[in-house]
Amino acid sequence: MIERYSRPEMAAIWSQATKYRIWFEIEAHGCDALADLGVIPTEAAKTIWDKGGAAEFDVARIDEIEREVKHDVIAFLTHLAEFIGDDARFVHQGFTSSDILDTTLSVQLARATDLLLVGMDRVLAALKTRAEEHKHTITIGRSHGIHAEPTTMGVKLARFYAEFARGRARLVTAREEIAVCAISGAIGTFANIDPTVEAHVAEKMGLAIEPVSSQVIPRDRHAAYFAALGVIASSIENIAVEVRHLQRTEVLEAEEYFSKGQKGSSAMPHKRNPILTENLTGLARLVRMAVIPAMENVALWHERDISHSSVERGIAPDTTIHLDFALHRLAGMIEKLMIYPDKMKANMDRLGGLHNSQRVLLALTQAGEQRESAYRLVQRNAMKVWEMFRADGTAGDGTFRDLLHQDADVTALLSSAQIDAMFNDDYHLKHVDTIFERVFS
Amino acid sequence: MIERYSRPEMAAIWSQATKYRIWFEIEAHGCDALADLGVIPTEAAKTIWDKGGAAEFDVARIDEIEREVKHDVIAFLTHLAEFIGDDARFVHQGFTSSDILDTTLSVQLARATDLLLVGMDRVLAALKTRAEEHKHTITIGRSHGIHAEPTTMGVKLARFYAEFARGRARLVTAREEIAVCAISGAIGTFANIDPTVEAHVAEKMGLAIEPVSSQVIPRDRHAAYFAALGVIASSIENIAVEVRHLQRTEVLEAEEYFSKGQKGSSAMPHKRNPILTENLTGLARLVRMAVIPAMENVALWHERDISHSSVERGIAPDTTIHLDFALHRLAGMIEKLMIYPDKMKANMDRLGGLHNSQRVLLALTQAGEQRESAYRLVQRNAMKVWEMFRADGTAGDGTFRDLLHQDADVTALLSSAQIDAMFNDDYHLKHVDTIFERVFS
Amino acid sequence: MIERYSRPEMAAIWSQATKYRIWFEIEAHGCDALADLGVIPTEAAKTIWDKGGAAEFDVARIDEIEREVKHDVIAFLTHLAEFIGDDARFVHQGFTSSDILDTTLSVQLARATDLLLVGMDRVLAALKTRAEEHKHTITIGRSHGIHAEPTTMGVKLARFYAEFARGRARLVTAREEIAVCAISGAIGTFANIDPTVEAHVAEKMGLAIEPVSSQVIPRDRHAAYFAALGVIASSIENIAVEVRHLQRTEVLEAEEYFSKGQKGSSAMPHKRNPILTENLTGLARLVRMAVIPAMENVALWHERDISHSSVERGIAPDTTIHLDFALHRLAGMIEKLMIYPDKMKANMDRLGGLHNSQRVLLALTQAGEQRESAYRLVQRNAMKVWEMFRADGTAGDGTFRDLLHQDADVTALLSSAQIDAMFNDDYHLKHVDTIFERVFS
Amino acid sequence: MIERYSRPEMAAIWSQATKYRIWFEIEAHGCDALADLGVIPTEAAKTIWDKGGAAEFDVARIDEIEREVKHDVIAFLTHLAEFIGDDARFVHQGFTSSDILDTTLSVQLARATDLLLVGMDRVLAALKTRAEEHKHTITIGRSHGIHAEPTTMGVKLARFYAEFARGRARLVTAREEIAVCAISGAIGTFANIDPTVEAHVAEKMGLAIEPVSSQVIPRDRHAAYFAALGVIASSIENIAVEVRHLQRTEVLEAEEYFSKGQKGSSAMPHKRNPILTENLTGLARLVRMAVIPAMENVALWHERDISHSSVERGIAPDTTIHLDFALHRLAGMIEKLMIYPDKMKANMDRLGGLHNSQRVLLALTQAGEQRESAYRLVQRNAMKVWEMFRADGTAGDGTFRDLLHQDADVTALLSSAQIDAMFNDDYHLKHVDTIFERVFS
Repeated sequence: MIERYSRPEMAAIWSQATKYRIWFEIEAHGCDALADLGVIPTEAAKTIWDKGGAAEFDVARIDEIEREVKHDVIAFLTHLAEFIGDDARFVHQGFTSSDILDTTLSVQLARATDLLLVGMDRVLAALKTRAEEHKHTITIGRSHGIHAEPTTMGVKLARFYAEFARGRARLVTAREEIAVCAISGAIGTFANIDPTVEAHVAEKMGLAIEPVSSQVIPRDRHAAYFAALGVIASSIENIAVEVRHLQRTEVLEAEEYFSKGQKGSSAMPHKRNPILTENLTGLARLVRMAVIPAMENVALWHERDISHSSVERGIAPDTTIHLDFALHRLAGMIEKLMIYPDKMKANMDRLGGLHNSQRVLLALTQAGEQRESAYRLVQRNAMKVWEMFRADGTAGDGTFRDLLHQDADVTALLSSAQIDAMFNDDYHLKHVDTIFERVFS
Repeated sequence: MIERYSRPEMAAIWSQATKYRIWFEIEAHGCDALADLGVIPTEAAKTIWDKGGAAEFDVARIDEIEREVKHDVIAFLTHLAEFIGDDARFVHQGFTSSDILDTTLSVQLARATDLLLVGMDRVLAALKTRAEEHKHTITIGRSHGIHAEPTTMGVKLARFYAEFARGRARLVTAREEIAVCAISGAIGTFANIDPTVEAHVAEKMGLAIEPVSSQVIPRDRHAAYFAALGVIASSIENIAVEVRHLQRTEVLEAEEYFSKGQKGSSAMPHKRNPILTENLTGLARLVRMAVIPAMENVALWHERDISHSSVERGIAPDTTIHLDFALHRLAGMIEKLMIYPDKMKANMDRLGGLHNSQRVLLALTQAGEQRESAYRLVQRNAMKVWEMFRADGTAGDGTFRDLLHQDADVTALLSSAQIDAMFNDDYHLKHVDTIFERVFS
Repeated sequence: MIERYSRPEMAAIWSQATKYRIWFEIEAHGCDALADLGVIPTEAAKTIWDKGGAAEFDVARIDEIEREVKHDVIAFLTHLAEFIGDDARFVHQGFTSSDILDTTLSVQLARATDLLLVGMDRVLAALKTRAEEHKHTITIGRSHGIHAEPTTMGVKLARFYAEFARGRARLVTAREEIAVCAISGAIGTFANIDPTVEAHVAEKMGLAIEPVSSQVIPRDRHAAYFAALGVIASSIENIAVEVRHLQRTEVLEAEEYFSKGQKGSSAMPHKRNPILTENLTGLARLVRMAVIPAMENVALWHERDISHSSVERGIAPDTTIHLDFALHRLAGMIEKLMIYPDKMKANMDRLGGLHNSQRVLLALTQAGEQRESAYRLVQRNAMKVWEMFRADGTAGDGTFRDLLHQDADVTALLSSAQIDAMFNDDYHLKHVDTIFERVFS
Repeated sequence: MIERYSRPEMAAIWSQATKYRIWFEIEAHGCDALADLGVIPTEAAKTIWDKGGAAEFDVARIDEIEREVKHDVIAFLTHLAEFIGDDARFVHQGFTSSDILDTTLSVQLARATDLLLVGMDRVLAALKTRAEEHKHTITIGRSHGIHAEPTTMGVKLARFYAEFARGRARLVTAREEIAVCAISGAIGTFANIDPTVEAHVAEKMGLAIEPVSSQVIPRDRHAAYFAALGVIASSIENIAVEVRHLQRTEVLEAEEYFSKGQKGSSAMPHKRNPILTENLTGLARLVRMAVIPAMENVALWHERDISHSSVERGIAPDTTIHLDFALHRLAGMIEKLMIYPDKMKANMDRLGGLHNSQRVLLALTQAGEQRESAYRLVQRNAMKVWEMFRADGTAGDGTFRDLLHQDADVTALLSSAQIDAMFNDDYHLKHVDTIFERVFS
């Protein structure tokens, strides 16, 4: 986990203290269920809650014990006994370590996902607000980095909104994948622990029951979970790359907020860099790198081996922490993004109306020209505009239209009025409402 | 695509012929919608179906044209005009190439997924049949590759069934992710094409409408799709690794079917190797390797770039073809897997009853011993058995029980009858019904 | 393998025909060595060469046999016997299938690498030629996509040259990794085959000897090989991304060659898209995706399992074929890249000299100002220029200089002549020779 | 970084304190070079060393400044000025932040690699010692997990030694890749800093000069570096998987050292699990997961963007720390691995001599039988032995030999003495010396 890409709320979920607290709760709820079954004394279950519930577990002390016994759960239980006394022997009856470890991981991942959903919602809210704000802000759509036809900044943002709405749905599904409880004993057979214990703990910890475990919860669940996070990270990268493009000097249609006193470069005082979105691009890679190891974790040997454990000690906290941070950084970036509609319009217009080339092509075809020759007609005029633009950085307003007027093969097919009528940008935006309705309603 | 890991049904979905047929259908349905809107003559739409519907497109001819125009859709349209004649100019009106390409990919992926679901169902059926057959076949559960406690072969298979049932659900979701249609024109604004065309084509091709496209269908959908396939591949590996373990010489509790005339090795005639499951292990890696590139495809530049295309030309056919093949190979392997219950029992019993160590531990604790000292008591006897087993390859029936009878510290806590009662394997299997009910009902 | 991203020379290396030819050569050279050892008759070895050397192996026939015996090498040997007759029984004496398969893979990968080196050399030559051509073509250097300080197009290309020179060295090393021969018998012990056979075959096939094999050549070699290819692919992406940026409409400092008759878009006749470099970006992902599976192949079970095989059937041909294609596409793209020096200069100058902000900062510091306040002085003037540029798309020539002249805090430290002297672009290019010397000599 | 998989020596390289110390050294050496050039006063350079050399930088204070200026290097320089006073303005003259950051990363990676080489050497030494110890310890070689032919434990270990020797060579190369210094100023043009500064700093910091940088050191170097680590990690997994197999209950030919007081399972006191090698298997995945992000980092935008930075903040420390830990854990595991030669022999012999099937096949062929029919002859006897073994867990000593004696088709070709002579295990080990010589000399 990289400290600087961490928010305290999420980091807290993965602290040692939280982990031991969840361990305790699982054990203690388990004792309640065992007491109900008559396996252990009801008094003992009560004592465990009384003494353990208030306990501040000593992480350093547990570490010390673990160094000796080389087993983390045993170390914890030993420490717990220091609080609870004699009744400690009733704790963990028929449990196996993985019952605790895996169920705890489920609790932590579920809680982490709840925080991630908060982050997603903040991103969605920001995207929606800015999309509505710029619903009609015209901007050139670009395919292959080349000007194509107009769209609006709102449509761009609506597109990201729809993508994050899908991401949110995937995250909800992913949460269901991993929010499961297994208290099934040594090899998952409930030989030494009744299934009702599992049911009780599951309910208390807010989890579903794992239908069949084998000491461990099956790792296809976690693979699916981290894959969902990887897709969301890729969507973050998608927005980040868009903003980085919009901010590049020659485009400059948007800029990340740049605060007073901020420095873009230690060497070059004129710089204003899109560092947030570049950072998000990198964070996306960090989140995504967990996907393959999580999939490699699925094929454990027989009923389980522990190769997944070290992987998850890394990726479970790191990936959720970095994604959580990234979502809030992304949301903040969107909320404060400076968008320059005039620059968008100016950039578009520097190509002299070329973005209407398809309309002209269609009009010529409708006027009876074969597609192929119509294409050639449009292309030969378009390329002249292109050359002007390349030479001077701007092709001048109306240039493409003027050239069409001067092309006898074109005017043989289209009247002057027809040509002029095609240079009307509203034409491109007539379905913006349709799109917004699809996305936001 | 690796020929030998390909089934014809799936390969056919990805043939050039199929692709062009789908292209035609999308264009022709589009013409119907355009005719309804009055954009093109109704007669033209009819002619297109009449002449194109029966056409056998010439793949080589299209390739030839493409080499000249360097654009695949234009090459196809040129070829199509050779069939349709003059009315060809009404085809593709207001469409952009990606409308065709992306919607076609959706159709192909959806059809591929339908085949994958057939494969999944075959795997599920095989797992269920064999699970029920071996519901009570006792076998040792192994954690870390080390004997732990008994379970049944049926429980193992039920576990895989549950995993594949989850995989199937993920596949259904994945299909929904990618079964979408976009006919939204150059930059996704419907400037030159009415949204009703999209709606009509979508319905005819069995797809949902993409709410907001940008010339392309957003690639987070495909990333999620290939991620789902990667998780399923990992589950295939999971079963494969289990079988490979069961077949290894020292275990030999199961063997892949070995046909008459089959040769395990060109050099060593005695060999019977688990080549199907080793092959499946490799195929899983091949399927999984599509996941990261699919995620890298998400962040296209602005409204789209075409970097995703070459990636998908590889991974879309290859991954679905290999996974399809793997599912059927897996199903066949399971269906014919030779399972040796006697060997399972024999292997388990060679450890002299050690698999009851936890029961003894619990009994000692319940008899009032502290967990720590109870553990030591059991461990010191268990390790003696372990030494015997290691020295002789078998510890002898009842050895662990006998040692317990001879340990005064044990007999001080447990009666002779109590000790004997703990060496009853049914104890471990008492919840097999519970598990089966959870999984199969 | 994707047909359209394949060159015939490379595809030929991976054809079935080539494979069987190499199999034959290894077997026949082996027979020579066995004859020298007196294990088989010299006449037999001669017959094998005579009859097999001229044979046209029938791929379909071998496939047919394989379907029966389910073993590819045995199928080949059976077919070979159809040519050679009785002496066929002397072939493969003491060999194991993997001796043939792994050594053949080494030969194929080595030959493939030789072709890749040709491709690398073409890229290097193209980069060098264009670098020298544009050694002094001034262009703005951009960090974070934002104008920074000037450099030259030649330096950019020299940087890529240096990167590809490193890639070439890695490829040479990678070739050494995999150009090894193992003819060591069933489990690598030479029990049934003398090490001199291996030495003879290795020499004849142009390979080094694998010091210790275990039926297979260790897969860390192949992992290192595919990793090297993955790095080269990433370098291809690096150039591709640069060109895509240079071509984007607002920058347009370079364009991929656009041939007569080419169409950028089926819908928009004005388009000229950087499709080659976008394609290369995708191909880079395809090559890179082999890296992780190749690493997952390393940990085979005991002396070997065959999980690596299906992976390599995919990645060995596909990755070398796609990389080979990508290198030649890249080289061709660079060779014909249209570079626009005037546009580079114009783009740079639109920021009104801002790229000298660091010089001014340093001058102020040298004039005795504390770094912090000097920074503020420069930044406040720079940001004014920035605002102008953003508003108008150009800040006007000399604007930054003029503002400095008007800033009393600046002129208190720097004379008018000192200020003017800092707006001289040659200053930035004074070490271009140094850099070229480092890279090209 | 996961605390428990971290050794203090390696963690120290990545501490904030170390980082700031290196930053200081680079700046101070730079000042020396600038003083030599007459750019700054010699006295100032001296003061900087005097006051900064002894300084204890306050990490918390630097963090505090960074929160304000949002730039780490500026924050450091501000803090440095608090020590050095007025002469601080001479620090960082003509440098850009990346000169410091990238060169520091090089120093840290180079130092980390030196530690990794120590780890590699410890692994190599352990492998060599144990290989020599078990040079003649016969054990069955297994392909596909199935008994094949005998080898020795020493050969196994020699094989791993050769693999790690290759890994060591790759690591040395990888170190060269990244041990480079770049002090080339804002965009790598040396506009504001003379190349001699770079040369001086490089020499003092023990680095080579980066021939052409662009504010950053090209990231193909780091990609190659992390790829090399990924291959080594895969080799670690290779050994780990071997040991896990050897320790599994049914094999039990080796065991990880199990200390007094250790507990294999909280629930089952009889357990002795190969937890070290399972852990290493997981750590291998963690190291490997850095490879793809490092490759994704190569294609930075133009002269640089900062997307690589967050990735490297994660993977640079984490990957080297985890690999370092893994190497020492591996070495320790090998050093103390308990190897059971008797068990190896016993396991092999349980198959009744089947491992000589190839010898018999070859003998029959040499006696004039066609390969195909010889194969059938051997196979029909071998499969009988196999059935016995499967039924009883052991086929009985000499069973295969006895069956051959009873097979009239065999005895028609081979004399009784010839048959007996083939059941001599020394035959398989005759080239062990050859292999050891190849590997260790």
